[in-house]
Amino acid sequence: MDNSATIVIFGASGDLTERKLIPGLYNLFIKGRLPQNFNIVGNSRTEYSHDEYRDKMKESAQKFVKSDQSRLDEFLQRLWYLPGNVKDEAFYTGMDDFIDGFEDGTSNRLYYLSTAPFLYEPILENLAISGMNHSNNGWRRIVIEKPFGYDLQTAKSLNDKVHDTFDERQVYRIDHYLGKETAQNILFFRFSNTIFEPIWNRNYIDHVQITVAEQVDVGRRAGYYDTSGVMRDMFQNHLLQLLALTAMEPPTCFDADALRNEKVKLLQAVHPVKLENTVRAQYHSYKTLDGVEDGSITPTYAALKLFVGNWRWEGVPFYLRSGKSMPQKTSEITVQFKPPAHMMFRIEHTEKMAGNTLTFRIQPNEGIELCTQAKQPDTAQKTSTVSMDFGYDEHFGHNAIPEAYERLLLDAVTGDAALFSRSDGIEAQWGIVDPIIQGWENNPDASPMAYYDESSWGPAEADDLLARASHRWIVRG
Amino acid sequence: MDNSATIVIFGASGDLTERKLIPGLYNLFIKGRLPQNFNIVGNSRTEYSHDEYRDKMKESAQKFVKSDQSRLDEFLQRLWYLPGNVKDEAFYTGMDDFIDGFEDGTSNRLYYLSTAPFLYEPILENLAISGMNHSNNGWRRIVIEKPFGYDLQTAKSLNDKVHDTFDERQVYRIDHYLGKETAQNILFFRFSNTIFEPIWNRNYIDHVQITVAEQVDVGRRAGYYDTSGVMRDMFQNHLLQLLALTAMEPPTCFDADALRNEKVKLLQAVHPVKLENTVRAQYHSYKTLDGVEDGSITPTYAALKLFVGNWRWEGVPFYLRSGKSMPQKTSEITVQFKPPAHMMFRIEHTEKMAGNTLTFRIQPNEGIELCTQAKQPDTAQKTSTVSMDFGYDEHFGHNAIPEAYERLLLDAVTGDAALFSRSDGIEAQWGIVDPIIQGWENNPDASPMAYYDESSWGPAEADDLLARASHRWIVRG
Repeated sequence: MDNSATIVIFGASGDLTERKLIPGLYNLFIKGRLPQNFNIVGNSRTEYSHDEYRDKMKESAQKFVKSDQSRLDEFLQRLWYLPGNVKDEAFYTGMDDFIDGFEDGTSNRLYYLSTAPFLYEPILENLAISGMNHSNNGWRRIVIEKPFGYDLQTAKSLNDKVHDTFDERQVYRIDHYLGKETAQNILFFRFSNTIFEPIWNRNYIDHVQITVAEQVDVGRRAGYYDTSGVMRDMFQNHLLQLLALTAMEPPTCFDADALRNEKVKLLQAVHPVKLENTVRAQYHSYKTLDGVEDGSITPTYAALKLFVGNWRWEGVPFYLRSGKSMPQKTSEITVQFKPPAHMMFRIEHTEKMAGNTLTFRIQPNEGIELCTQAKQPDTAQKTSTVSMDFGYDEHFGHNAIPEAYERLLLDAVTGDAALFSRSDGIEAQWGIVDPIIQGWENNPDASPMAYYDESSWGPAEADDLLARASHRWIVRG
Repeated sequence: MDNSATIVIFGASGDLTERKLIPGLYNLFIKGRLPQNFNIVGNSRTEYSHDEYRDKMKESAQKFVKSDQSRLDEFLQRLWYLPGNVKDEAFYTGMDDFIDGFEDGTSNRLYYLSTAPFLYEPILENLAISGMNHSNNGWRRIVIEKPFGYDLQTAKSLNDKVHDTFDERQVYRIDHYLGKETAQNILFFRFSNTIFEPIWNRNYIDHVQITVAEQVDVGRRAGYYDTSGVMRDMFQNHLLQLLALTAMEPPTCFDADALRNEKVKLLQAVHPVKLENTVRAQYHSYKTLDGVEDGSITPTYAALKLFVGNWRWEGVPFYLRSGKSMPQKTSEITVQFKPPAHMMFRIEHTEKMAGNTLTFRIQPNEGIELCTQAKQPDTAQKTSTVSMDFGYDEHFGHNAIPEAYERLLLDAVTGDAALFSRSDGIEAQWGIVDPIIQGWENNPDASPMAYYDESSWGPAEADDLLARASHRWIVRG
């Protein structure tokens, strides 16, 4: 571990800083995982003194993290605040000098971009102009929050800007889903057990379902949300990351490049999604919200059926869905295996015996469930679906799972980019969702907007999408 | 279901009748699974009147089964008792006439041999002499309790005697382990799920362990036990049946002959067991028991390493062990899968990552446990063994599992021999254990008698047997 580092947070008065970044950094401090000489410098346009900002963050920390009074005070002494406009070149010289003051010989800096996305480019430019992107005696890294681009073209253009200022190896693009223990565990479960990999392919798997359901509706974010929608907000990042983790080939090692090579390869192997294999929908009251345009075609729900063109997966449907105002909050992946080819038992009804399912519960109720058939006691040959379950809480204890941001901050500080998106990955993700969004806009009748009840599992059209292949949505979470 | 049947129990004053047969038949009666016109006729040499015998059985039923007073009385009205010596030909004529009295047109009879084994042959002979083995308007079946023979030769000779009197399809040889729900479920689990069969072979399985441990010691049965020993008492039947269920090829259907063909094929494929792959042992105080001969070489514990010579299993060790006076009562089968061939994660110690295990808990605590590796939260790349469990009690409710004998009695009455041993199966089982017993007797130094502490997991020699291949005994029950 390096002996010193400064973490600069742009957008330090925002919600994310308060709820995730400061609590995450505090936890790392408590666990002794931060460099001995670490400092955190917050910036936004709001005027705070160092102490005012510390007080504000102290309040947040007490709300969002289990904190010890004296250790928290100790932590807050490393927290500083510099108000200023990030579009103002002159501001950076002052900041550079200020940070210089902490640095004794080595100069390691992590710049965390947690501002509105339109500020990413000015910040990058000004970091370059002020020379703060280079160091002769230390490292420079940049963390970029989502959304990374608005479509494929803007993502490419942002990547170009980033690469003008930083090498790719210095860039840490956040998708906080990758910091979740349960998302990381998909790879551990697949590749540190022998029994699943041999059957993890088109010969044994019937289809795969990925559900990321939000119980909340658009709420007060309607104005912003209406410019984004579920494809940009959820599919382009979280759902496609979960797809990649579930379907990718085994990397040779758990190293940032080896891992990301395989993920990008998988994403690039996704066949273009036909519009007839997409469903877009709004919940009924969405259009009545303040901030939503008349005649808005921004979907709050979408479902896709897509295929991966490689030896492992050709012909296996992957169903992805996500929406607001669903009956419960759940992120889960279910692998539906084929039913037994031959049935040696006398089955009393004509229905085929259910295939096995393996469900990764990403959140909440984190765990893994395997559904199998067992003989029903006191019958001659009847079977019954039984569940074999592993729960994080039960096994590792309550609260054993740290916040995703804690892990991601640690990795950024220690220089492990495995759980961050690479430029080609981001572009591959946009390469999948952008044509769908454009298709909906340019060819509105191919998959017309559907509507669903608040607190329902989405429109009938999404059930039909699966029913065409005799499939059904599964929720186990 | 047939409309009438008479069940004749030879050995009706014995322990088995009291504890298992009458309670089992009562439960079948309560569940409406017995023919409408059923009668039970008990016989032994003890003199009881019908009512005395009913009172005796009433007492047992109340002890061993949850009974309803008036239904129990109803049941007991179908119970009769005929005292007599089964070696006496004349007795059979009286019994035949007595049973005749219940029979209205059809004559279906199940003869249950629950006597001392030396009486099996006289009973068979006398049934033949009296013509009670034939029926022109109904069926005749015979159930034969274990032990079936004392070695291969006596088993063959008993089979010959049986076949002089009954066709093989009329014969139901009991191994009550086959009546256990959890033993039956091995086949259901293997063949009604898709995910295990593809990895159920030498490519993925490192070895298999079968443990049938008894917590009790020889106790008051020492005199009898000393003439038998663990090989005859446990291996020849229960352990080899569990082996067959675990390792057999899939039958085309769950039909008595299809099933038993595969079991026999598997048993016949077992390579002769080398004496150096056997361990025999006595617990320390065994020789001091009343009834045990001086210098007895009867083992109360044995462990075997055996191999199955076929495409699926060649080279995979099967470890079988059973003993008296162990620390706990447990019957379980653990399939140990190979560890992952390639380890992509950074492992902090040089030890290889543990392979997966699948454990069938036959009894008690009936269920199935799958041990897998998962990422340990709040670490970079550490894994931890976690368990996915299915428990019968939890899933099907407490007491959902009927007694093995209840199921076996039902199958015998309805004519389904799938869960009974066929003559070639019995002989194949003796063909495996008889040479081992003879080897120990004729070549005493090849695998000398070992000794173990009471309430221990057996002698050090049994640990060495596995350690030679870097294996270790597993207990999950």
